[in-house]
Amino acid sequence: MSAIRLQPIGIIHSPYTRAEDVPVQPVYARGIQGQAVVDPQYAEGLRDLDGFSHIHLLYHFHRAGPSRLLVKPFLDDASRGLFATRAPCRPNPIGMSLVKLVAVTENVLHLEDVDILDGTPLLDIKPFVTRFDHRDGARCGWQDRIDEVTARERGTHRRPDCSP
Amino acid sequence: MSAIRLQPIGIIHSPYTRAEDVPVQPVYARGIQGQAVVDPQYAEGLRDLDGFSHIHLLYHFHRAGPSRLLVKPFLDDASRGLFATRAPCRPNPIGMSLVKLVAVTENVLHLEDVDILDGTPLLDIKPFVTRFDHRDGARCGWQDRIDEVTARERGTHRRPDCSP
Repeated sequence: MSAIRLQPIGIIHSPYTRAEDVPVQPVYARGIQGQAVVDPQYAEGLRDLDGFSHIHLLYHFHRAGPSRLLVKPFLDDASRGLFATRAPCRPNPIGMSLVKLVAVTENVLHLEDVDILDGTPLLDIKPFVTRFDHRDGARCGWQDRIDEVTARERGTHRRPDCSP
Repeated sequence: MSAIRLQPIGIIHSPYTRAEDVPVQPVYARGIQGQAVVDPQYAEGLRDLDGFSHIHLLYHFHRAGPSRLLVKPFLDDASRGLFATRAPCRPNPIGMSLVKLVAVTENVLHLEDVDILDGTPLLDIKPFVTRFDHRDGARCGWQDRIDEVTARERGTHRRPDCSP
């Protein structure tokens, strides 16, 4: 299979300059503000986006280490298959965050709930559409065994362990 | 910003060999079966995935045309900014589908609700985790003005218009 070459469409800014400080998911980064500065050549493609309260950002985990197949996720003490986690050390290090869109001014998206490292290369923006993106009663494997209080505590104080 | 090079981790199979036949979203492809055949070198990373009823697939829209900044989405008659839609003709043609995971056998994921063209290069797999991936009461812009009956009718019979 042939390789795929992507070119960032912008840069994500956030208060987080060190990987170890970044919350592990937007739900554990409530109120944290950031911006996605989109290359002006793509600004026209942002039209109509301001009607959406939430957007998915796809981005390059540009500081992720080498890919690992088993990782210890931040919510758990056991090793899990990488693809059953959101850890960054993936064969294709693409991150996905569902963030709050506060405002759009020209080529800049003003965001909240940002769990992304400052300077991260932005690859794509997709609107959150409830009718496409939600499933009632989904079964969530090992995640279902972690209660919400524990998840929140670990989500703000632990990082997934990608170390060899 | 420097380019990013990705290598597919597998191939997605589905009954759809022509782009014009593919439903536009998994919610309009209910019951359609497919497989994601992951390169055996990554099989260990699939451990624990079978506990999840739904997974996000990220893949290369390998048959998408050149990127466009305004498109006519399948659900609408008006032109919309590309990033306020899920149309495939994006600067970085990455597709994202939330599909049902029926079973995992070795390096093969057995899927349902597949809205993906046969032979599509797979880039990443992320589990659907309700606590990360859902937002109550999200506002969905132009999508909110399309009622569900119309959406379903158009979702099964129309394609987004990326033609110049």
